[in-house]
Amino acid sequence: MAYCIFSYPGESPRVGLRAAGRLLDLSLLAEEGIFDFDSSVFYEPYLNEYIALGRAVHERARAQVQGWVGESRGGEAAWTELADVDFHLPVRIGDYTDFYSSLEHATNVGKLFRDPENALLPNWRHLPVGYHGRASSIVVSGTPIRRPAGQVKTNEMTTPEFRPSNRLDYELEMGFVIGKDSRLGEPVPIAEAEDYVFGLVLFNDWSARDIQKWEYVPLGPFLGKSFASTVSPWVIPLADLEPYRTAGPRQEPAPLPYLLHPDPSTRVRAHFDLELTAELTPAGGQPTVIARSNTKHLYWSIAQQVAHHTSNGCNLRVGDLLATGTISAPGDGGYGSLLEASHGGRAPIKLNDGQTRAFLEDGDTITLRARTTDGAVDFGEAWGTVVNSLK
Amino acid sequence: MAYCIFSYPGESPRVGLRAAGRLLDLSLLAEEGIFDFDSSVFYEPYLNEYIALGRAVHERARAQVQGWVGESRGGEAAWTELADVDFHLPVRIGDYTDFYSSLEHATNVGKLFRDPENALLPNWRHLPVGYHGRASSIVVSGTPIRRPAGQVKTNEMTTPEFRPSNRLDYELEMGFVIGKDSRLGEPVPIAEAEDYVFGLVLFNDWSARDIQKWEYVPLGPFLGKSFASTVSPWVIPLADLEPYRTAGPRQEPAPLPYLLHPDPSTRVRAHFDLELTAELTPAGGQPTVIARSNTKHLYWSIAQQVAHHTSNGCNLRVGDLLATGTISAPGDGGYGSLLEASHGGRAPIKLNDGQTRAFLEDGDTITLRARTTDGAVDFGEAWGTVVNSLK
Repeated sequence: MAYCIFSYPGESPRVGLRAAGRLLDLSLLAEEGIFDFDSSVFYEPYLNEYIALGRAVHERARAQVQGWVGESRGGEAAWTELADVDFHLPVRIGDYTDFYSSLEHATNVGKLFRDPENALLPNWRHLPVGYHGRASSIVVSGTPIRRPAGQVKTNEMTTPEFRPSNRLDYELEMGFVIGKDSRLGEPVPIAEAEDYVFGLVLFNDWSARDIQKWEYVPLGPFLGKSFASTVSPWVIPLADLEPYRTAGPRQEPAPLPYLLHPDPSTRVRAHFDLELTAELTPAGGQPTVIARSNTKHLYWSIAQQVAHHTSNGCNLRVGDLLATGTISAPGDGGYGSLLEASHGGRAPIKLNDGQTRAFLEDGDTITLRARTTDGAVDFGEAWGTVVNSLK
Repeated sequence: MAYCIFSYPGESPRVGLRAAGRLLDLSLLAEEGIFDFDSSVFYEPYLNEYIALGRAVHERARAQVQGWVGESRGGEAAWTELADVDFHLPVRIGDYTDFYSSLEHATNVGKLFRDPENALLPNWRHLPVGYHGRASSIVVSGTPIRRPAGQVKTNEMTTPEFRPSNRLDYELEMGFVIGKDSRLGEPVPIAEAEDYVFGLVLFNDWSARDIQKWEYVPLGPFLGKSFASTVSPWVIPLADLEPYRTAGPRQEPAPLPYLLHPDPSTRVRAHFDLELTAELTPAGGQPTVIARSNTKHLYWSIAQQVAHHTSNGCNLRVGDLLATGTISAPGDGGYGSLLEASHGGRAPIKLNDGQTRAFLEDGDTITLRARTTDGAVDFGEAWGTVVNSLK
């Protein structure tokens, strides 16, 4: 079940479901009366109201849709081709948090931004490092990405300049959408953490490395990230990923109890086996796959991220988006950002058509994809094209 | 005009206005038909819909309320005592950003957290350093503040522990509420920046210094801040502060053009003369004023913060909250946090009743206040009491 918010030309957004490469209009199924809950949620412009109904209703919705499809009732009217509709931001995002949960990415970036000898900071193996990001500038796949301008000061410059970023980058991430409110002041135990997750999306955390490098001390990334992030139109419920659970990397040292998956069987099933790719397509050119990774390479699991986030009593709300941070895989070809792949810009990567890239050029398109090895679960695409700079 | 969201016991929240120490129910005035715009906004549970009507409507509302009060029409029915109602979070906050705009605070904290010899990082005098904060845990004045637990690792410890914070602190700040949407990809020029601000609130950015210190590298404060922040129930429109404009500190080096107030007359009037105090009251004890400061001590103005925030194309939305960061004044007695006042905990401050405090104890109440010297503009209070720790 891949949920989305879509609209027919000139009409208002509503809830859809992708099945067998086509789109099923759930608002029409609601009109046919196939649901046994308040299905006015399928006329909403965001998934939040549907998500808030809770997992038991989502399971009933699944069964009722499957029953309807199986009986072929109603026929063709509720189906549309994907190419014939517009897709919208699927969730009204409250707070957005970005983690930094890939050991390979944190190590690679630490070497480039800080000290090659001490790439990983002392806290990294003890907690899922994360920070608050900007929700207002999260856009749906296909939205053009304007190259930001900002203050830049390289080591060679004596004073900063305000200019268009020339180290524009992407980040290959997954995001997860919160499906249940937690209460302020009440941490979510790790054993219950996944109950608070509705589903997953593709997520590209566009980054301006030159702006980020000058601004980020001591309070973290700000304008180097907040100009835009891209999500897939599709949200896939966690329930659909059950068959694809797998173990993550061994955690050493052992996490503190509040971050410890409570029994060995959940511990080795806390991660998901999803193949990820990032593709770069220059204007008018051919695509090149520039990164191949997998969510199973994340060091910190989704459950650990939720447990940590709420451990101080911070509350989560339906529609909050938590992202994993760049998911890099071990080895060359597994770099989930150009910063890593080009070794800080010093070693531009080669594209299939002979061009090279250290960072993104205007007209470049980045397309993220995620799917299970068997192809049964497919997140579609999250893509964006870099357009002309801000003045 | 101090706007708020309030409710009579057992009734739903609506919009009110404080005048002469009492509360005027704008929904009742709307029923009387005194407004010439869609006054259903006064029945909303947040100010956002009213704010979104724009400054011209706000000015008409002011004139129409003043006309009604002057004519004494309707009499007493629309007035209530402040003690007879409940106050609620005044704004549905989208994104919350916290700046770090006080030179004294940044210098004091830099000495304690990092290097006493290089307290101010190289970027600080070139841009208003800021970071994204957590919106979900912002609460209205009077809401109890649960002491957070979290990972702590002091220099003496070899591995981190999860335990209740014992360095719980407050921060004396002001916040400003965005009054107009800006467009993604379109920076707001500094000359127009204040057009995007509706009004100001008191803001206490509660901070757990021990959690913050261990977690904050390299991506900034996260759980050390996100457990709670307190705002005043009152939002005071920027228009009310016009008579209290003043110059801020001299900025050296001169800001880059996008941060430069466009003409000398605005440059020397970009700040506001608001007297700030923070008061600590132990359980059952007497209050002690522990900080006296003034918004005019901010190095970076509100307009500069807005211009910087949008300089990369990041969009602002009605109801976003931007806070100034702790506003410390030069000299002892001007420290806007206990971290500063107690010199990192080494020199506990004395309270009027003989107790001392390095950081906050359970039962302590912090009350922030702001007013103009003449008392004509009064932000009321933002207070919160520290309650027992999370388990």
